[in-house]
This record gives sequence, C-alpha cells and structure tokens, in this order.
Amino acid sequence: MENKYGIKVIAGGACAAKGFSASGVHCGIRRNRSKKDLALIVSDTPCNAAAVYTRNLVKGAPLEVTREHIAAGKLRAIVCNSGIANTCNANGKQVAEETCALVGEALGIPAESVAVASTGVIGQPLELAPIKAGIPVLVASLCCDSTSAAEAIMTTDTVMKQVAVSFEVGGKRCVVGGIAKGSGMIHPDMATMLVFLTTDAAISSEMLQKALSGDIGGTFNMLSIDGDTSTNDMVLVLANGQAGNEEIKQEGDAFDAFMCALNTVNIRLCKMLAGDGEGATKLLECEVTGAKTLADARKAAKSVICSSLVKAAMFGADANWGRVLCALGYCGAELDPAKVGVVFRSAAGEVEVCRDGAGTDFSEELAKKVLSEKEIVIEVTLADGEASASAWGCDLSYDYVRINGDYRT
Amino acid sequence: MENKYGIKVIAGGACAAKGFSASGVHCGIRRNRSKKDLALIVSDTPCNAAAVYTRNLVKGAPLEVTREHIAAGKLRAIVCNSGIANTCNANGKQVAEETCALVGEALGIPAESVAVASTGVIGQPLELAPIKAGIPVLVASLCCDSTSAAEAIMTTDTVMKQVAVSFEVGGKRCVVGGIAKGSGMIHPDMATMLVFLTTDAAISSEMLQKALSGDIGGTFNMLSIDGDTSTNDMVLVLANGQAGNEEIKQEGDAFDAFMCALNTVNIRLCKMLAGDGEGATKLLECEVTGAKTLADARKAAKSVICSSLVKAAMFGADANWGRVLCALGYCGAELDPAKVGVVFRSAAGEVEVCRDGAGTDFSEELAKKVLSEKEIVIEVTLADGEASASAWGCDLSYDYVRINGDYRT
Repeated sequence: MENKYGIKVIAGGACAAKGFSASGVHCGIRRNRSKKDLALIVSDTPCNAAAVYTRNLVKGAPLEVTREHIAAGKLRAIVCNSGIANTCNANGKQVAEETCALVGEALGIPAESVAVASTGVIGQPLELAPIKAGIPVLVASLCCDSTSAAEAIMTTDTVMKQVAVSFEVGGKRCVVGGIAKGSGMIHPDMATMLVFLTTDAAISSEMLQKALSGDIGGTFNMLSIDGDTSTNDMVLVLANGQAGNEEIKQEGDAFDAFMCALNTVNIRLCKMLAGDGEGATKLLECEVTGAKTLADARKAAKSVICSSLVKAAMFGADANWGRVLCALGYCGAELDPAKVGVVFRSAAGEVEVCRDGAGTDFSEELAKKVLSEKEIVIEVTLADGEASASAWGCDLSYDYVRINGDYRT
Repeated sequence: MENKYGIKVIAGGACAAKGFSASGVHCGIRRNRSKKDLALIVSDTPCNAAAVYTRNLVKGAPLEVTREHIAAGKLRAIVCNSGIANTCNANGKQVAEETCALVGEALGIPAESVAVASTGVIGQPLELAPIKAGIPVLVASLCCDSTSAAEAIMTTDTVMKQVAVSFEVGGKRCVVGGIAKGSGMIHPDMATMLVFLTTDAAISSEMLQKALSGDIGGTFNMLSIDGDTSTNDMVLVLANGQAGNEEIKQEGDAFDAFMCALNTVNIRLCKMLAGDGEGATKLLECEVTGAKTLADARKAAKSVICSSLVKAAMFGADANWGRVLCALGYCGAELDPAKVGVVFRSAAGEVEVCRDGAGTDFSEELAKKVLSEKEIVIEVTLADGEASASAWGCDLSYDYVRINGDYRT
C-alpha cells in the first residue's frame, strides 16, 4: 500500500512539507525550566485547514477558539502550550483569544488565522504573562525543524513524536508530516490527543476535512491508553498548497494518494503514541479479522485493547487468553464465542492459544518468549464475516499508577 | 430507611436465615492446600429461586446449567468452586451437570434442585475428580455458619464477605443474608460477581425475581473495579419460607419491607466488594445529585468510579478534581459542565474543590487529609434536576498491576 502512490517515509515532522517552520521554548507556564512549554508552527502562506475535536462535553476553551478561527477562513499558524489545559477556567476563552492575538501581532497576521491548543492539568488558571513573554522568543527561533515544537507539547510523554512521508500527485512531489503528543487520558471515539499535521499538497478545505474525518475512524479513534477521553484533544491539519499540484477538489486518484499518505502518517503516530502510553513497557496491537461488519471489528479490537486485565497480563507476559475472550464477549459486537481464535505474535514468533473458542495445548515457554517482546500483536479471528480492524494500546504497568497517583504535584 | 421495617444488621451471612446450612473445603482444584476451593449452601426445605447473570456473550457453562435448574422448579442447594471458571471448555456443561448430580446424590435430592457456579481462570479444563472426592467432606461439614463457604468462593479477594439483616413482615421476623466474592473483572451492567443470598421469608418466585431484578440496577450494577465484565457472574437468591410469614405474592408493604432488607444487604455487600477490589487501598463512593434523570445520574456516577485517572489520583490522595469533570464530560449523560460542583468527603472532613464548573480556592492541606482516609465519597452536584445515584469502586494501585500481571502463574 505504501508504494502504490510512491509513498516514502522521510525525515522530519511538521516542517517536512514546503513552507512550514516551527519552534518550541520554555516560557514559564511550567516551573521546570528544562521543559519546553510553548510551541509554534507557521506556514509562509495561508492554509486550508481541517480539524476533529474531542467529544467530551467538558471542552478546553482553546478548542472553541480554534473552531471559530477555522470557520472564519484560512490559517497561518498553530500555537500550543503544555502544563495547563486551560479547561474549566472562568476566563479560559479570553486567554485563548489573547494568545492568538499576541501570535498574530508578532507574525504580522490576523489573530483569526491562528489556531490555539492547550494540554496539561484541568482546572488551573492559565496566566497570559509567560505566554506574552515567550512569543517573541518563539517567533525568533522559528526554523525548519519541528523537534523543539514536538518537545514543547509533551506532557507525560517520554519521547517526542514526529513523522513525515512524501508521495506523488500528478507528477508533483507532496509531503504530509506532523507532530503529536499524548500519553494518558487517551480513549477512542474522540480525537484523543494533540496532533498537528502539515502538508504542502494543494487540497480544498472540504476535501481536507473529508480526508481527516474519514481517516481517524481507523487510526486515532482506535487508540486507547487508559479509557479516559481528554477534554482538550484535537487533530488539526494545515495545507498550504506549495507543492504545486493541481488542487484536489474531488474524489479520485489524487485524493486516494493523499488519503493513503495521511493514513501512513497517522498509523505511525498512533503506534508512537500507544508505545509511549503512560507507564507503557509494551506496544499492543489487536488485529481482528472475520467480523460481520467493520463496526463489529472495531468494537472487538478496541475492547481487547481497553481491557485492564488483558493489559496487565501483557505487562506480566502471561498468556492469559481467557481475558481476551472475556473482553470480546462484552464488546457489544455480534460474534459467536465458539468460533473465536486467538494468536499472540511478536518478533520472537507466534503462538496459537485458542481455537474455536477453547484453549489449545500451547507451549507456555514459547508464549512467555513471544510476550516478552516490546511489540505484541494479538490476532483475533472471529470466523464470522469479512471485516477487519486494528486497535493500538499499551500494557498496564506499575508506572501508570505512579505517574497518575500524583500528576499535579 | 433501615428502621422503617425494623431492619437490623445481624451476625452471619448465608446461614442467618432459618433452615440454611453451609460449608467450604479444599478439594484439590487449587494446588495450595490452605485455600478452600469448594462451597455448598443447603436449605432443609425446597426454595423459590431467582437469579441474574452476566451479559457477557462468553458465558461460563455453570450459568447455563443453573438457569435450566431454576426454570425446572424449586432449588435446595448451591455448589460453587473457585480456582477454575469452567468457561471456554469443550466439556464444561457436562462437568457442571455432573457436579450437580454428585451433590444431589450426596444430599438425597434431585440434581435439578442444585444450582452450580464456578469462578477462576477462564479456559482451563475443570476436572471432576477433586470435586467428586470433596463432596462427601463438604456434606459432612455442613453447619449453621457460612464463613467456610464464603472463604471457599474467594479468588483474589483478601477478606471473606458475608452480611445479614433481620426485618419484620406481618409480625413475623424474617432474615435476608448472603455471601459474596469478587475482586477483579468487575464492571456495571452485568451481575458482576458471585453473590449467594438466602432468606427465610415466604415469597413467590415471581416476586423474588422482581425484587432481585429491581434491586441490582442501583446496587451490583453500580459497582466497578476494573471495567472488565466477568464471564461467570451471577447473583442468586433462595427463599425457603421458614419464617412463616404469609407468602408475598404482590406489591405492597410486605414486598417493600423485603425490598428494603434486600437493598440493605446488597449495598453492604457492594461496599465490601468495592473496598476489597484488586489492589484497593481505598473504597470510593460517588454520589451524584441533581441529574435530569435516574439514567443520567447512574451514568455520571459510574463514569467517575470507572475512570482510571480518578482512581489513580485517589490512590495518591491527589485532589485532581479536573479528572472528575473530565469523566463526567464523556459519561453520556445530559449535563451542563458550567453547573457542576464537586466535594471530596471522608471521616477527616470535606472539601469543596469545584463550584459552577470551575475550581475553588481550596486548602490543598485539608484536601490531602480528606483523601488520605480509607473511605472517600466524591459528591457531584449537577444542579440540573432531581435524580440521584451512587456508585462504588476503589482506587487503582500498584498492587492491581502486580495481582493481574501474573494471575495464572
């Protein structure tokens, strides 16, 4: 699939596409001076923009402002702070608007062309002073490497996340890339984290939104770390058209190429996010095949990935496949337990632990070896149809508890 | 409420009601000889019976057999093993039926008058031999104390759970009591654990089922330890009528008294189960008031109790109330975040942390003191209606991970 449209993974992230620059600094929202807390991504030229947002009723103030700015027209920049979520604050919207105004002023662009996001503790007031002080430094340090920006949006993430791919549309080389953060409070059915994507492909706003909305069902909405849906999540994509391809205005080959490139980026970001889930020692992927419908396949894969008991068993490298069946049984999909098969797979090999709903006489030694790897695939066959889906998550470790037992302090 | 029908908590559990005896032994299903693994509850006389079962599609074979036996007529006994769940086994139903036959033979009663349950690891075969060897000992050790039976059904439970209350119906003293087990794989919307209740009240099968089905919505279905719904859960109640009251055949005062007694027993068992959740260091109760509907109140209370992030914060005695709002925001209930209030309460006092959807200027010192107690109440006011509900759970600790990282080994 990656080669059909000449898709190649390339170096970089949000600045890999033409015309984008980025920066990240410590401005003082966080006490720890060695942790960057303010990020900026800027396009030389106006961009079509599309976004998806958390469906949590409790929403961060920045989401509302970003939504309004996207509705108002083209975007030029994204500003994002970490440390404080700017959610459940009386003056949250005002602070988010003033942040956009300050960025607009510093860049000489309208405030309405700036998207804003925040991530961190909910319910603590976000002061404007450090942001005001940080913006000139942020603008001065803009460069063609998004590493600092990727670092500045991290909260409990342990590694910064960026990825980019190149592909071809009508003989023109285009790039899609992005940065992401997210480690806890991540659960399907919402945008689930912060992801800022950029592309130099020319694509209309409508098709850009269509591509993003169409892709997240099988990517970011299939990712769960802890079952908690954040209040501040969004996936935002900016397209500045500098690749010079004929603008993608409808479905067809060019749109398919763009979708495929976007999907490649998003799946890689999903795996990075899952593998760096709070306290994670392992990346888990559940591949469901043979479901009656796509919805059933997705329900089944998500249920396995979300099960605390499956996650804890994977942490312990314990081939307790009964917990996989248990999670399938309550997932809400139509399935026949007597037809279910389960295989654990990793770099160390694979082991079939359940066939036709009952245990096989598998080697515990081999299973332990397979499950002791860093990346585990749980293959589930439902033998009841043609639909398939994958979901990503991580194991449940002591460190998840340690990280979340005193997040604020 | 407890006094309206002369309800008093009394000593004992499943043998507090007249005519019931019980026993528990180690028969060899478990390797550890000091852990009892087979329990029996017997009534002198035939009982009306009612039950609710897990809604997991993957169901333990014993549930099917118990369902058939309740449909066939009156019950005399309940047999239950721990260690192996007898689920996802090819010969599971046969083993469950033969277990009932062996108990029936030993007690001189029909196999169809015996209910059967199993709890433990899913997908391992359950051998009949140890059960066959254990039943004569089990029958010989029947006595009027259900402690041994309560111990024999324990899995990762750390304390045995039994409770009983007396109450009055038409001048006759009646008793409802029971034993329960359940520590992990516990989640709302299913029967969620094993609970065996007994009563000497005379009540028709229909009204008994009505009482049980009506009660669990606000009790066992409001209990969550880890979000995983077990395959083997049931709540089973036997009524032998030995109290001599006029049989309860319809709604009215006598039925209300029975419902109230049953509710008192079930709420106490819920709190015992939640407080002994796997790895729990604290019992959490979420009291929601001011919801638009009962369904909304229940959704809100369950969502807070189920949130891994709230649970981990409570483990760390961290007053991170933003996570409570986050959980309310994605619970699916109709609510206005700007009206929400949150108070943390315990034996050490109470602290209002959120009013009208925003943080108060609370004392972190007081909050730490309140949250350092063993029983924490999270009071949520939605200020949007008259409905209320409570849910019970526990904190998320290192020990949950330890217990579940290698449950089988």
